[in-house]
Amino acid sequence: MTQQPNWSPRFESGLHPHIARFNASINFDIELIEYDITGSQAHAKMLAHTGIISELEGEQLVSGLEQIRQEYRSGKFTPGVDAEDVHFAVERRLTEITGDVGKKLHTARSRNDQVGTDTRLYLRAQIEQIQRQIREFQSVLLDIAEQNVETLIPGYTHLQRAQPLSLAHHLLAYFQMLERDCQRLSDVRRRVNISPLGCGALAGTTFPIDRHYTAELLHFDAVYENSLDGVSDRDFAIEFTCAASLIMVHLSRLAEEVIFWASQEFGFVTLLDSCATGSSIMPQKKNPDVPELVRGKTGRVFGHLQALLVMMKGLPLAYNKDLQEDKEGLFDSVKTVTDCLESMTILLREGLQFRNRRLADAVCEDFSNATDVADYLATKGVPFREAYNLVGKVVKTCIATNKLLKDLTLEEWKQLHPAFEADIYQAINPLQVVAARNSYGGTGFTQVREALKNARATLNVPTR
Amino acid sequence: MTQQPNWSPRFESGLHPHIARFNASINFDIELIEYDITGSQAHAKMLAHTGIISELEGEQLVSGLEQIRQEYRSGKFTPGVDAEDVHFAVERRLTEITGDVGKKLHTARSRNDQVGTDTRLYLRAQIEQIQRQIREFQSVLLDIAEQNVETLIPGYTHLQRAQPLSLAHHLLAYFQMLERDCQRLSDVRRRVNISPLGCGALAGTTFPIDRHYTAELLHFDAVYENSLDGVSDRDFAIEFTCAASLIMVHLSRLAEEVIFWASQEFGFVTLLDSCATGSSIMPQKKNPDVPELVRGKTGRVFGHLQALLVMMKGLPLAYNKDLQEDKEGLFDSVKTVTDCLESMTILLREGLQFRNRRLADAVCEDFSNATDVADYLATKGVPFREAYNLVGKVVKTCIATNKLLKDLTLEEWKQLHPAFEADIYQAINPLQVVAARNSYGGTGFTQVREALKNARATLNVPTR
Amino acid sequence: MTQQPNWSPRFESGLHPHIARFNASINFDIELIEYDITGSQAHAKMLAHTGIISELEGEQLVSGLEQIRQEYRSGKFTPGVDAEDVHFAVERRLTEITGDVGKKLHTARSRNDQVGTDTRLYLRAQIEQIQRQIREFQSVLLDIAEQNVETLIPGYTHLQRAQPLSLAHHLLAYFQMLERDCQRLSDVRRRVNISPLGCGALAGTTFPIDRHYTAELLHFDAVYENSLDGVSDRDFAIEFTCAASLIMVHLSRLAEEVIFWASQEFGFVTLLDSCATGSSIMPQKKNPDVPELVRGKTGRVFGHLQALLVMMKGLPLAYNKDLQEDKEGLFDSVKTVTDCLESMTILLREGLQFRNRRLADAVCEDFSNATDVADYLATKGVPFREAYNLVGKVVKTCIATNKLLKDLTLEEWKQLHPAFEADIYQAINPLQVVAARNSYGGTGFTQVREALKNARATLNVPTR
Amino acid sequence: MTQQPNWSPRFESGLHPHIARFNASINFDIELIEYDITGSQAHAKMLAHTGIISELEGEQLVSGLEQIRQEYRSGKFTPGVDAEDVHFAVERRLTEITGDVGKKLHTARSRNDQVGTDTRLYLRAQIEQIQRQIREFQSVLLDIAEQNVETLIPGYTHLQRAQPLSLAHHLLAYFQMLERDCQRLSDVRRRVNISPLGCGALAGTTFPIDRHYTAELLHFDAVYENSLDGVSDRDFAIEFTCAASLIMVHLSRLAEEVIFWASQEFGFVTLLDSCATGSSIMPQKKNPDVPELVRGKTGRVFGHLQALLVMMKGLPLAYNKDLQEDKEGLFDSVKTVTDCLESMTILLREGLQFRNRRLADAVCEDFSNATDVADYLATKGVPFREAYNLVGKVVKTCIATNKLLKDLTLEEWKQLHPAFEADIYQAINPLQVVAARNSYGGTGFTQVREALKNARATLNVPTR
Repeated sequence: MTQQPNWSPRFESGLHPHIARFNASINFDIELIEYDITGSQAHAKMLAHTGIISELEGEQLVSGLEQIRQEYRSGKFTPGVDAEDVHFAVERRLTEITGDVGKKLHTARSRNDQVGTDTRLYLRAQIEQIQRQIREFQSVLLDIAEQNVETLIPGYTHLQRAQPLSLAHHLLAYFQMLERDCQRLSDVRRRVNISPLGCGALAGTTFPIDRHYTAELLHFDAVYENSLDGVSDRDFAIEFTCAASLIMVHLSRLAEEVIFWASQEFGFVTLLDSCATGSSIMPQKKNPDVPELVRGKTGRVFGHLQALLVMMKGLPLAYNKDLQEDKEGLFDSVKTVTDCLESMTILLREGLQFRNRRLADAVCEDFSNATDVADYLATKGVPFREAYNLVGKVVKTCIATNKLLKDLTLEEWKQLHPAFEADIYQAINPLQVVAARNSYGGTGFTQVREALKNARATLNVPTR
Repeated sequence: MTQQPNWSPRFESGLHPHIARFNASINFDIELIEYDITGSQAHAKMLAHTGIISELEGEQLVSGLEQIRQEYRSGKFTPGVDAEDVHFAVERRLTEITGDVGKKLHTARSRNDQVGTDTRLYLRAQIEQIQRQIREFQSVLLDIAEQNVETLIPGYTHLQRAQPLSLAHHLLAYFQMLERDCQRLSDVRRRVNISPLGCGALAGTTFPIDRHYTAELLHFDAVYENSLDGVSDRDFAIEFTCAASLIMVHLSRLAEEVIFWASQEFGFVTLLDSCATGSSIMPQKKNPDVPELVRGKTGRVFGHLQALLVMMKGLPLAYNKDLQEDKEGLFDSVKTVTDCLESMTILLREGLQFRNRRLADAVCEDFSNATDVADYLATKGVPFREAYNLVGKVVKTCIATNKLLKDLTLEEWKQLHPAFEADIYQAINPLQVVAARNSYGGTGFTQVREALKNARATLNVPTR
Repeated sequence: MTQQPNWSPRFESGLHPHIARFNASINFDIELIEYDITGSQAHAKMLAHTGIISELEGEQLVSGLEQIRQEYRSGKFTPGVDAEDVHFAVERRLTEITGDVGKKLHTARSRNDQVGTDTRLYLRAQIEQIQRQIREFQSVLLDIAEQNVETLIPGYTHLQRAQPLSLAHHLLAYFQMLERDCQRLSDVRRRVNISPLGCGALAGTTFPIDRHYTAELLHFDAVYENSLDGVSDRDFAIEFTCAASLIMVHLSRLAEEVIFWASQEFGFVTLLDSCATGSSIMPQKKNPDVPELVRGKTGRVFGHLQALLVMMKGLPLAYNKDLQEDKEGLFDSVKTVTDCLESMTILLREGLQFRNRRLADAVCEDFSNATDVADYLATKGVPFREAYNLVGKVVKTCIATNKLLKDLTLEEWKQLHPAFEADIYQAINPLQVVAARNSYGGTGFTQVREALKNARATLNVPTR
Repeated sequence: MTQQPNWSPRFESGLHPHIARFNASINFDIELIEYDITGSQAHAKMLAHTGIISELEGEQLVSGLEQIRQEYRSGKFTPGVDAEDVHFAVERRLTEITGDVGKKLHTARSRNDQVGTDTRLYLRAQIEQIQRQIREFQSVLLDIAEQNVETLIPGYTHLQRAQPLSLAHHLLAYFQMLERDCQRLSDVRRRVNISPLGCGALAGTTFPIDRHYTAELLHFDAVYENSLDGVSDRDFAIEFTCAASLIMVHLSRLAEEVIFWASQEFGFVTLLDSCATGSSIMPQKKNPDVPELVRGKTGRVFGHLQALLVMMKGLPLAYNKDLQEDKEGLFDSVKTVTDCLESMTILLREGLQFRNRRLADAVCEDFSNATDVADYLATKGVPFREAYNLVGKVVKTCIATNKLLKDLTLEEWKQLHPAFEADIYQAINPLQVVAARNSYGGTGFTQVREALKNARATLNVPTR
């Protein structure tokens, strides 16, 4: 037995039951229901405003829609698969509530511009939510950074000890990545926040609608200039998913670092019970599941980005059913980014502690002050490349004799190059090594304090 | 308030509630529950078989697990998020049912080898199901092909008319693609059907287990040779998702063709109501939603493939929590391929009709017999490249004078080249053009009939 | 025999020859040479400006670098694989030219901030070039559109005839997509045009450099606020590649349409010889290779986007050698987009002609005026959903009797609904159908003329 | 000025110069030249064998082609962009050499089946080469493993110390991954090694060719059963690229581990000069560029896989120009995998040394023997989950008092549970902990020795 069709009597029989399920989007586009209602209310107001329907009809539609919203929130309205999609479900319920008036709602509108409107309203709200989460996460990063300006931590390139850093400086790098994410989302938002409502099926409509009126009611910044483009554009979803992918890239980098830091070998942080898990078999285990999951979920968002791009490739104008596939990937990208930001915020705020003693020891046990010796000589007029070569030799000798640079005597220094004097010891002391990198944006404490001040100020700037 | 931890008393406090939800996999790995029970039953039998537990204990575990299976099927057992994952949920319920004996189930096992076992059992079953669906779809293709050996259809390269074809030959191309898919799944299955059970957390176990015994009980072909590899290998999931992507590639190609064919311009098929949908605003519309959705869902599987690859990149040995992310993409790939195969099968079986009259007209209205003129000359000794050039000139003249090749008089033919004789008309008749391509695997009717016979025989060959 | 190492005497022996080749980037990063020289000149001027080196040394370095630029342009300087990368190649040559002074160039700088600077200078230039190409392509679209306001073309949804369109309106949809691309590139440019120079290896430098000075010399808008972020950020490359992917999406959509239009079935355009190719065997063929290649190259850019994302996932701070892999994907994305834009511009400008007669015929032969009948009734007070249902019935009857809507008599119309009057014929005439969709952004001619005017004005707005 | 077209005189004018360059594939498909020649020789022999051309003509073609091969090898034949592609280049040169006979070569063949043949011959050769490289790499892994059966190394899950391992066992995990890669390539090869030659443009040919004859000459296992499928199938390229992606996954995992191991914190290996690089500014640095590059190149192959899938999505039958885009991604995937395998082989063979002393110390300093205490109790009849909980408590106490398990007195053990006896010390000794995991495929030395023997034997099994 097949289902009754939702569309015109051109169709004699309904869909094959499997095909009905295959086509239906109600099980995921129900997520849009409140945006759909809000969009329809604006459309109804516009129809009345322009005289396409009467004022009374307009009011009946608006309040009927509001009733559906309340029914949905209270769990009374739960459309099933026979509704095909959220748009039909709402229109059908509206007609039950308001009678023939409900059948006028779809005047001068198509599902094509309707679903585009809903999706943009949804995404705009999510972008704002994600931006708030980013600000929260940045704030936690700053809290830790402000308490750790003079906490030293080894700095790495190629995962080899390179130069020691202020821990605050290290954390501020992530602050900056997230700041870019926030800015990028604002750029994306500008292209999300454009109204396709009134583009009709593809060509506009014969009714004297007022698209700027609905756009204003729905707080859109502008309207689509071309109706074909309006109904078939999904750039905004792709652009958002790319921005989401970059957020995941940044979180995955921090996640990787936390995983290292929590290992016995690094031992730079202790994981607290609230954010760690055990093993089903090894009683001693305490695992960094949170950063591992964040890292693991990264590919998921990349995958959605790819899926959306593939969906759009080579689609002729205008709307094609393929576009229905934009939603699940978009929704899951939003959910993943939201969950991961929240989890990393909790992890940093209350799930780990830096082991400052261990960090302090770490920076004294390596050759990460070697550049400073080269710089020392360069400052005294030795061409940098020569100084660099000379220090390379020193390091080799030290390794062979199991010494660090600080273990060399002044005579030994002078033998290496006459320019060395007693102040070389000061120059290679880790605290001084860090303090001396005082170039703009560098790890020198003065710079870091300035950067912290600027970062804190940034948090108070609205994201748009 | 935080949740009680599932693991060892090394942990003093439970997880942060958000983190508990973030970590939990129960909402999707519940899909594995019957495979988990089956796997645990085999493990319990082995523990008894090897004397690690008593025979009686083994029996209690097996029947307790069976009870859970029945409780699940009847809707009485519905573990929530506090269970973390399906494995803990089942073990906990088992302990409720059997008391202390239940606590022995996890002897000589870890969740790492357990989840690997479950996933492989699941995927093996899905592969078999998909192979059956492929066979069904191939059978429908053959049904149509067998009735359309002499139905001609334009053949295209670059979407330009190239050479006319037997419709059966065209459909057999898809038969072959799906045949490769079937074969590929069998290859994948060989690497899926290997038991990791007994690999423990990563290193094997100190108990005298018998991995080959459980493998045999679970119908695995072999056991993993290395325990680290056994718990951290996800090649099989990636390889399957690539095979699934190729199925989608093939379905998307046919989908694209159906969309063309159903257009007014091509008009090669009529869509029937059971597989078409209308528009919310344009009453005349009859849309090919099924092939559009199939095409649109293609990127989804590509995205999962990419997500799985990204997840695995650079993961150190052995198990990492990232691996938990393998499931949703795998499950959705299975679901998508299954749904799309089913939908395309229905579409071809009962959702469209070829318009044979229109097809017959189509092949008479173009220059797709031009190659045959060149071949005609080449057969008479004119070097192919020369013959080709001569025919190119003829076509140009015909287009300028709005003629087709069949409209040329014999004199005109002879003027072009003395080798032409009256049999040229026969040579360029569409039916003959098709019949003459009788090289092995070509569209000639003799070949096609042979191919159909072979194809039908293939359907009776077991997929393994 | 192994190669001499480029770095410090800490190393006793050189690289294994295969490893030397494997590590070397000179064969592709040579593309950056002029940007590298320009960046180094700015660095040298800054070193002199801040007194780190003398004014004379600064001048020697700047003119030595300029000499290398000329040597490169004239083909005299062609560094090989032994140079490892373009940066070492230039520094080594500079030392040959200027002697010991050359060894001072690398003071207060690292390859990490250097390569970041080079890549940004390169990409900034490419973005500007691509924006110029987009403007050129948009201009060609407008040229055609302006001549085809009243040329009608069938409008499609689901590749089914939906509503007829002004050809100009159809082309303007692509104008808008490209306008978004242009705007997006400007946004990307803002995040590209930030200077990492002076971030050093990862931590800044001990020298009293002036990062704002070099930024100003190189026309950067700002400097990186955090040195770790400055050397390890590749967001800008990913964001660009996403913008490039979207350009490819848009071009692939137009490409797909051109391929349809050029088919015998659609016949909407004629391909001209300058942009079409033949077959090696079928003398009649004229293939739309340009749009096919554009469509085919789309995945290539998607692939580079994916590759860059994968590269960055989970990389710990700060620089890692993995980042060297950013270049080839980025360069090829630039090349692909540039080539495709150029090719599509040529194709539209001089490679195809619309067949207006055929287009005019096409819009008269279908039911794409059915919505107008429903709108006609809705305007007369019939609730839209009722009107829609009634028209659905009409269409079904027409198909059964092989009629179009225009073939119905007035009596027949009136029988269907008393509201129909003689003006229904006017309402369903294709020209009127198009003209009547006069809502903002719709296909109505008044709207289209306004849109054309606005579009033309847009072309004169600078892209930043 | 435009170029002369290569095809039929249907074309009056040549291509636009930019379009000619855009279309041309000669700059990359020249890589196929020897395979193209070999394929053409087989085709020529078949033409003579079947009497389509004379024996003499056949011989002239074969020897003319051989001459071109020699000219190419000696650098005398260097076709430029005007040749469009390698196939035309060879045919044109052949006609120069042999005169009119050369014009007969393309009889009963199209570029579509020709390029498919070339690509498969190329890929078959590359697969064999990669399989040889895998065997070489496996052999190096075995060499190290055989010398390190009793070298212990910490085993990790979640990058937390889990259970100690035999280093040989750890390396054997990679042996197994590569063994699967090798097997997978053999499966791929079966679908690569099928001949499309004779499928013609799309429909077969009117000439009495013998496809099995050419297949045999070219060592193909079978011929394509359907001509449309034969010219438009690119499954084999995608399937290969997926297999290549999995190789990269495996190499990237080992690469990540080597990067960790080489860090100061882990210190498990020393990098030797032949495979390490320095910094341009930090004289002490010794960077693991090889594994970093391998890890970084992983995304590149994933990207090619994605690009190929995207290329194929929704392509109608049969050949489309898009397919030309298969080559660069395929070639670069081959090159990347080949280079990375070679580099990792060199790295392991001569580029790093395990620091066995440090490894031996490492396994004594943690709680990775905790499972063994639980197992100890479980063996004595304590239900596993209870034993696990008890040990969890012990570990917590030990951490609080800064002790390891081995530091507990026998009294302390007995207080924890009466079942403990003096043999507990033996049970938790790292060597015993490893030895005791003697389940099949486990890290116990007996198992490992057996596994090594089997692995060595595997190397002598042919890959097909």
